[in-house]
Amino acid sequence: MESVQWVYAFTDVATVVARTDDWEGVRGLLGGKGANLAEMTRLSLPVPPGFTITTQACMSTINANFEFPEGLWEQVLTALADIEQRTGKRFGAPENPLLVSVRSGAKYSMPGMMETILNVGLNDAVVPGLIALTADPRFVWDSYRRLLAMFGHTAMGIEDKAFKEVMEALKGELRLTQDTELNAEAMQELTARFKKVYRDAVGQEFPQAPEEQLRIAIGAIFKSWMGKRALDYRKIEHIPDDIGTGVNVQAMVFGNMGDNSGTGVAFTRDSATGARVLYGDYLLNAQGEDVVAGIRNTKRVAQLGDDLPEVGAQLHAIGQQLESHYRDMQDIEFTIERGKLWILQTRTGKRSARAAVKIAVDMVAEGMISREQALLRVTPQDVDYFLHPQFIAAEVAEAKKAGRLIAEGVAASPGAAVGRLVFDADTAEARGTAGEAVIMVRAETKPDDVHGMKPAQGILTSLGGTTAHAAVVARQFGIPAVVGAAALSIDEDRRQVTVNGRTLGEDDVLSLDGTTGKVYLGALPTVVPDFDEEIELLTLLGWADEIAEASTARRWKTDLQGFPTRGLQVWTNADLPEDARRARRYGARGIGLCRSEHMFFDPERLPHVQTMILHAEAAQSLLDVVLDCERILESGKEQGQVITEGRRGEVVTALAAARAAVAASEAVRVYRAALARLQGFQYSDFYGLFEAMDGLPVIIRLLDPPMHEFLPEHGELLAKVTELRARGVDGVDLEQAEVQLGAIKRMHEANPMMGLRGIRLGIVFPDIVEMQVRAIFEAACDASAAGYRVFPEVMIPLTGHINELKWTQVALERVATAVMAEKGCTLAYKFGSMLEVPRACLTAGELAGLAEFFSFGTNDLTQMTFGYSRDDAERRFLHGYLERGILPTDPFKTLDPEGVGELLRMGVRRGRAVRFGLEVGVCGEHGGDPQSVEFCHLVGLNYVSCSPFRVPVARLAAAQAALKHQGEVLD
Amino acid sequence: MESVQWVYAFTDVATVVARTDDWEGVRGLLGGKGANLAEMTRLSLPVPPGFTITTQACMSTINANFEFPEGLWEQVLTALADIEQRTGKRFGAPENPLLVSVRSGAKYSMPGMMETILNVGLNDAVVPGLIALTADPRFVWDSYRRLLAMFGHTAMGIEDKAFKEVMEALKGELRLTQDTELNAEAMQELTARFKKVYRDAVGQEFPQAPEEQLRIAIGAIFKSWMGKRALDYRKIEHIPDDIGTGVNVQAMVFGNMGDNSGTGVAFTRDSATGARVLYGDYLLNAQGEDVVAGIRNTKRVAQLGDDLPEVGAQLHAIGQQLESHYRDMQDIEFTIERGKLWILQTRTGKRSARAAVKIAVDMVAEGMISREQALLRVTPQDVDYFLHPQFIAAEVAEAKKAGRLIAEGVAASPGAAVGRLVFDADTAEARGTAGEAVIMVRAETKPDDVHGMKPAQGILTSLGGTTAHAAVVARQFGIPAVVGAAALSIDEDRRQVTVNGRTLGEDDVLSLDGTTGKVYLGALPTVVPDFDEEIELLTLLGWADEIAEASTARRWKTDLQGFPTRGLQVWTNADLPEDARRARRYGARGIGLCRSEHMFFDPERLPHVQTMILHAEAAQSLLDVVLDCERILESGKEQGQVITEGRRGEVVTALAAARAAVAASEAVRVYRAALARLQGFQYSDFYGLFEAMDGLPVIIRLLDPPMHEFLPEHGELLAKVTELRARGVDGVDLEQAEVQLGAIKRMHEANPMMGLRGIRLGIVFPDIVEMQVRAIFEAACDASAAGYRVFPEVMIPLTGHINELKWTQVALERVATAVMAEKGCTLAYKFGSMLEVPRACLTAGELAGLAEFFSFGTNDLTQMTFGYSRDDAERRFLHGYLERGILPTDPFKTLDPEGVGELLRMGVRRGRAVRFGLEVGVCGEHGGDPQSVEFCHLVGLNYVSCSPFRVPVARLAAAQAALKHQGEVLD
Repeated sequence: MESVQWVYAFTDVATVVARTDDWEGVRGLLGGKGANLAEMTRLSLPVPPGFTITTQACMSTINANFEFPEGLWEQVLTALADIEQRTGKRFGAPENPLLVSVRSGAKYSMPGMMETILNVGLNDAVVPGLIALTADPRFVWDSYRRLLAMFGHTAMGIEDKAFKEVMEALKGELRLTQDTELNAEAMQELTARFKKVYRDAVGQEFPQAPEEQLRIAIGAIFKSWMGKRALDYRKIEHIPDDIGTGVNVQAMVFGNMGDNSGTGVAFTRDSATGARVLYGDYLLNAQGEDVVAGIRNTKRVAQLGDDLPEVGAQLHAIGQQLESHYRDMQDIEFTIERGKLWILQTRTGKRSARAAVKIAVDMVAEGMISREQALLRVTPQDVDYFLHPQFIAAEVAEAKKAGRLIAEGVAASPGAAVGRLVFDADTAEARGTAGEAVIMVRAETKPDDVHGMKPAQGILTSLGGTTAHAAVVARQFGIPAVVGAAALSIDEDRRQVTVNGRTLGEDDVLSLDGTTGKVYLGALPTVVPDFDEEIELLTLLGWADEIAEASTARRWKTDLQGFPTRGLQVWTNADLPEDARRARRYGARGIGLCRSEHMFFDPERLPHVQTMILHAEAAQSLLDVVLDCERILESGKEQGQVITEGRRGEVVTALAAARAAVAASEAVRVYRAALARLQGFQYSDFYGLFEAMDGLPVIIRLLDPPMHEFLPEHGELLAKVTELRARGVDGVDLEQAEVQLGAIKRMHEANPMMGLRGIRLGIVFPDIVEMQVRAIFEAACDASAAGYRVFPEVMIPLTGHINELKWTQVALERVATAVMAEKGCTLAYKFGSMLEVPRACLTAGELAGLAEFFSFGTNDLTQMTFGYSRDDAERRFLHGYLERGILPTDPFKTLDPEGVGELLRMGVRRGRAVRFGLEVGVCGEHGGDPQSVEFCHLVGLNYVSCSPFRVPVARLAAAQAALKHQGEVLD
Repeated sequence: MESVQWVYAFTDVATVVARTDDWEGVRGLLGGKGANLAEMTRLSLPVPPGFTITTQACMSTINANFEFPEGLWEQVLTALADIEQRTGKRFGAPENPLLVSVRSGAKYSMPGMMETILNVGLNDAVVPGLIALTADPRFVWDSYRRLLAMFGHTAMGIEDKAFKEVMEALKGELRLTQDTELNAEAMQELTARFKKVYRDAVGQEFPQAPEEQLRIAIGAIFKSWMGKRALDYRKIEHIPDDIGTGVNVQAMVFGNMGDNSGTGVAFTRDSATGARVLYGDYLLNAQGEDVVAGIRNTKRVAQLGDDLPEVGAQLHAIGQQLESHYRDMQDIEFTIERGKLWILQTRTGKRSARAAVKIAVDMVAEGMISREQALLRVTPQDVDYFLHPQFIAAEVAEAKKAGRLIAEGVAASPGAAVGRLVFDADTAEARGTAGEAVIMVRAETKPDDVHGMKPAQGILTSLGGTTAHAAVVARQFGIPAVVGAAALSIDEDRRQVTVNGRTLGEDDVLSLDGTTGKVYLGALPTVVPDFDEEIELLTLLGWADEIAEASTARRWKTDLQGFPTRGLQVWTNADLPEDARRARRYGARGIGLCRSEHMFFDPERLPHVQTMILHAEAAQSLLDVVLDCERILESGKEQGQVITEGRRGEVVTALAAARAAVAASEAVRVYRAALARLQGFQYSDFYGLFEAMDGLPVIIRLLDPPMHEFLPEHGELLAKVTELRARGVDGVDLEQAEVQLGAIKRMHEANPMMGLRGIRLGIVFPDIVEMQVRAIFEAACDASAAGYRVFPEVMIPLTGHINELKWTQVALERVATAVMAEKGCTLAYKFGSMLEVPRACLTAGELAGLAEFFSFGTNDLTQMTFGYSRDDAERRFLHGYLERGILPTDPFKTLDPEGVGELLRMGVRRGRAVRFGLEVGVCGEHGGDPQSVEFCHLVGLNYVSCSPFRVPVARLAAAQAALKHQGEVLD
């Protein structure tokens, strides 16, 4: 009967793999580490020779109550002899001795569970020979005492503590504090004392016979597979218990055997820039840990050719070979022992964002990888790097050491910012627009702080989370922000902030890193990539667009909603022409969301907006009578009942009276005058957008937020009124403040998020949205006449019932048609719905009867689907939910696929079932989140719309999603 | 070639129908009115003879450019001759002349579109004969001038105005103001002048030949089918244009031909009480309008036998015949002409709620209808009548005439209430519990007003709508309420209300009608049905339960979720044992919602609740450290990562420290003491419920509302603090108020509806819900030991993610099991979820993995599905939406089937697909709304739960739904 093959020399494996081509099987049999060593050996790389004992051998040993199976030990000895032959060293021989490492390695990576015993084969007899060979007695005694401790602990179960205590005692006797201070003699003494620890604990001397050391070491590693720690770990990680671990026995090589020895790490390309040069560090006559410890100055790998020309050339060749083999940049560990190069490990090299992009694009040019592979090599975070100034890692490390890290908060908007502190929006605006670098510091921000946020370099708040106003606006503008830095105590009145007992004022400078959430005292230097000059990035994103947009037509599994999409585009959320132009430079293919009212906060406009709001109710109550009468006469019905001739007469009379009342009304006059002023402003807003987006669609959302947002905050106003009254100041100021206060009180809502907003405003105050539509179409017609290709799309927000569309859309389309007739202009335009309440998605089929496009407002949809108020949730419970793992991710950051996503899926299908080819996109914060972009691809959206600064990231994410799910049929 | 039959004598139709049994076809051919006259004729009732010209004849005439088709006129003349023969009168004969009415009648009812010409056949020659016959020259001339006007307008297109002006002129000449003052001579003069109007307009004399009158009248009615008014109407109502109208020509009969003539209306049962007696009014020698006008005192139909014995007996017999035929109570119009009884019309009689119930139940006993038919005859509103005191219609009419109707608002909770005004909850409680009838008047109510609402007779507010706090609580308690009576200006401090300039105070009495929304000055008398003595109602509802609960097992169309339901039960929302007992009397089969925190507002408990809240944060922050350490040690993981041995040691140390901190904390001590006190209160609350619901399930919902609701209102507290400070009063009061104020500020949320509520509270403050679960199971075990059969079901509110259940439900079940072990008691219990955020419905499949029952909280689900804040929507836009028909119904009153209903459907199916036979109910306000109950039946729910006062209504609605959808397969 032929014996089972329990042992595979690294050189054996190549034949096995060549026969089966089953790397998975090989990994199962040999474990991950064994398989990798074999792979390098197979590539004929100079790997120190060795062998792997199979995982089967491990399980057989365990099942036989820790008796080695028949033939195992004999095969080990044969394989060991093979190593001796290949190295020319002898196991246990005092002259030129072979030492080996013994390491575990299971099929699945089990970090921290790896058992290792180094220097096996070292004993009292070998020591002098090894000292003669290395001329380094400290190294040899150090190696011996390490063998004793590792063997004692791993094989004999002696607590680490026992060895540590002995070492501490010796250091005490010698009055030393660091291990590195122990010299050769001390190490020799330590070896003697470790032997005693071993003897005392085990009741026997440490085995001097190398074969016995090896046998015991192998058995110990098998045993460790069933140790409590390993069992617990596998239970938690759901790794089966019966797969066993492999054991790798490998010749040790030493880089400290003289000046023709050495050790180092080489990257096949520059990990910082991506340049195609061999890159890394090495030391001659040194061990691996010396390179890392930084005691001696390392040399650049490029110089290796000067020291050891042949080795240098060989390393260069091996680097190229490994790169070609793995088709990616490699991080290679090597040791040179007496002029002979040994490769100990290779793995995919970590790299900077810049390098990632350059390497990916270069490798395509070099024919090493395809464009698709290149796109999958770069992460969305890599792309994001190019859009924000960044601190320099070394400077950050310095600053930390110097104690300049003074606070941490939520990393709300990425990038680095440096500036003097300002504590209010007006100052921020004044100093910021004057060209000074300022950081705006506030407890939290509000819509009326926006004019100060834009000119600031960065935003820092003590309250709020990733979805706070400050965070959302900062991301929108691409301004770095750290929010919720709780250690800050901000006194806005005194214009100072206290943090850990230190008080900073308007003359102090802070550096904040919106990518990490860290805040440093003083100025740190930054680097700012210039997007337009990043040729490799532009190339890569160009490929991304091709892949994403050409992604093969997909079909739903149920054929009813069959819909060939062109793949996912990236559009942008932009309110101002400059944002639109920036987004276009970043590759946006349209505007998915222009918040028509965002310009209302402009100081020039706000007074008119407030006048409009303060007269809206009074004016509208009169206008409503006219509208209601007109509707009755037009439809011939009143509350669903057909009217009689008599009633018709009455209504005609009422209409005449109502028209007279409107004509005589001061409120109506003021209201209409304010609307007319705003229409002028809006006209130029929209004209600028159409100009900037020439040839691309522009979706403009009608007035959305509750109107009280445009009035001063209640508390502030109350304080003002109280103060004016106390000072006895009568007059316009007090009167106006009192009028505003009254209006705010009337407008107060318990839950404004679910109050009079969106289309509801459009129904209650039709003149406002009609004004907006008029401005949109006048601007569009004029821009068209000026030669721009305009594609206006009017978005009706917060739609929840088809009748809301019937009521408003029809009226607004009349306005649009009238304007186009006046201007003698014909445009391709659309009217569509913003789907942001769950009911809109549930009844999407009905809505699609009128709506010509859908855009999911996933921010609000997430709020209402979860029932989470975005303004409060983070502070009140969401943070705890995330910390405790109740929610896997923040649903305001990454779209919730089961809940909100289900509504999206439903909305898309039901909408397209009614209106074939319906244009559907997402315009919430999620549009810039790669995981959410992937989801949007999966449900077959036409575009995601995100802030300009997220456009490049989303472009990559869209391409990656298309590649990941190529050819899939949608569920 | 045989001619088409264009004309059907009423007597002909019977044979046609007997042959085809196609009443729909007959209605299409003859129109609705013609078919009905034929049906009565077929029953051999004494209907004045006549005939119908078919709708086909109408369309043929129209299509032939208003030429009668071949044979039509000949057939009319033949049918007319038949009438002459049957009546013994002659068309156009001066002695005993036949007059006929000519009326249109299409297939579909077109109210207000009916064309009528009466008295056709009257002319100058006939007048003297008819005067001789009736001895009433005024009647004859009046009839003639009406013929002229109707014929002139309908057939010749003369404007009504022309005739009216002539009449006004004559009245002016005679110095009269009322038409009725015109005597016979005046009528004769008017006839002459109308002839002139006719002649002037038409250019010809009014046709004296009766046949010519008839021919023109028929043609005019055909023509009217294509008139603008009719075309417009049909366009709006989507009635086709090509179906035409029938024309009915019928002999006129007169009740004013002497003392053996008369006219009247008879009901076959008493429409007020339902008693089986012939009921109604008549007058001898009178016309129909005399009975209605009330000029002469009418006689009771029961007396008719005294005046005209044979006619009386005949009417009685006809009444019984019609009732037997139509199997329902009839409302019959009759005329007696010279001792001969004529039936002009019969229809289903209107009846009071009481009569509806009695008639339905009696008719089952009499074998006339089945139980199922009886159940469909009674409306839910009829049942509701029996649950509330009611005003008496006559008294209400009196009050209105006397100008005592002083305000109107939203009819928020039905029933009548009379009482003195009180303006705050404490006074309401004091005077109400002392037995005084009081009406609580406030601008709006808040949770801390509840103790005063319960002892009040009624609630009146100036703000809010049907879903305001006042409205919801009032319905819950079955207290009549009118809310949002905007005319009221309430000054709570001065304890007075001003309405239309009148000021009322605490000594004034109001009567308010929660069924109509009207408010009257002073006391109106009321009647209060006693539910337990309403034998017929109890009988009917017993049948309802049988039908609803035995409704045949239904299956989903897609078989996956196959689920045999037992039909829909009615459960109740009740927090207190007395409510539970009442609901049980009303037929509730379980408690579907006990709001565990509703008892917290009790003045004895509120201080402990507030103490608990004020110490919760501080205590919990310490307790959380302990909990988090315990969880890490138990799971061996921290933030998803396996912990090292070293970290384990650190956590063990931290745990010990945290436990010491908890033990030493004053906040924890106070918090726990408050929880212990509350546990005692909750124990007795729950024990009482288990006792009251012996043998039935009791669902108890854990703490749901945001905690700030239990603290004083922010403004009030601020005022208090300001005042105390101003008065320089230091001390406990100020300190306590300041602490509360601070807590309220910290707890402030922008949108509390979507804030820290429900299960989120249970996760942030686990001790509170654990206390509640302990109280529930201690009470349940003790009640069980005392011999009650208890079925506790613990409901976790606002569930939105399966991990929320994993986190809390598992811990709470441990508490439950521990309590049962302590008590040595085994109970059948359930833990389940309240589905009230859309995500819960979308992920119901996941939730059902843990949840053992579902209950849809349709109030909140409606809020979040629409994105409507219930507190504000009505005032801000919902009212307008309903008025303008944008929403067909108030979604907070009637469940929205497309949106919210879709989520219910989804929740039920996904839940039952995972957990077969999952118990699912509805516990929102909708549970008491008949239309919503029908929807709940359709989606296969197990029960609806509503306030006790809606239970009987829902029982009927459930039965009606089962009957209406018998044998249907669910979609």
